Amino acid sequence: MVELDFEKTNGLIPVIAQDYKTNEVLMLAYMNKEAWEKTLETGKATYWSRSRNKLWLKGETSGNFQIVKEIFVDCDLDTVLLKVEQIGEAACHEGYKSCFFRKISEGDIKIIGEKIFDPKEKYGDKNE
Amino acid sequence: MVELDFEKTNGLIPVIAQDYKTNEVLMLAYMNKEAWEKTLETGKATYWSRSRNKLWLKGETSGNFQIVKEIFVDCDLDTVLLKVEQIGEAACHEGYKSCFFRKISEGDIKIIGEKIFDPKEKYGDKNE
Repeated sequence: MVELDFEKTNGLIPVIAQDYKTNEVLMLAYMNKEAWEKTLETGKATYWSRSRNKLWLKGETSGNFQIVKEIFVDCDLDTVLLKVEQIGEAACHEGYKSCFFRKISEGDIKIIGEKIFDPKEKYGDKNE
Repeated sequence: MVELDFEKTNGLIPVIAQDYKTNEVLMLAYMNKEAWEKTLETGKATYWSRSRNKLWLKGETSGNFQIVKEIFVDCDLDTVLLKVEQIGEAACHEGYKSCFFRKISEGDIKIIGEKIFDPKEKYGDKNE
């Protein structure tokens, strides 16, 4: 069993989700030990929601699950990289494929991502 | 000017460095406001070293600078994605191209990355 270093960062480690086909970085979220074990066990990305303070199966509201294809760990064992199949084509709760849909250029911020869904239609008043 | 949310995470935000040509994820490090501004100003990735507790120009010891090609921010403005040109072909202080040189498979951990340099030759007793 692989032991990650959850202690260094107060129990939560950053996890990068990357599209397994295109290598596009989709999002960054956090896992505690329970979320990590759940992800290994189920093959679906499960994070720790810092805003809701609870375990968060990505896609539980939207249906946009992340099917884990490959798992990598970094040299310090305190960051995880998941290569995933993003169900529904969009990882971001704002409806974009990637959470990194804005680019900084000459001090300005510009939307460059493609919107896949309308968050209001998907979540109503809830937020994933 | 783009204002990132440094408050949420005690002054440090995670930054993903990705190879601008291949989209390989090279590493994850952290920036405080000063490191962020330095990166914007110089065009070279500058992080905050949590172990040494000081500003860290990536490559200052190894010569393996990261030339910033594109900058993206996420939906919450608390994570940065840098597309970089990795000088020296290796981002990891252990000599691998990517810090994510180990893959988890069936509970085991396996080195899959290619070693580009020998850390002892590069750093001597120092560590970047």
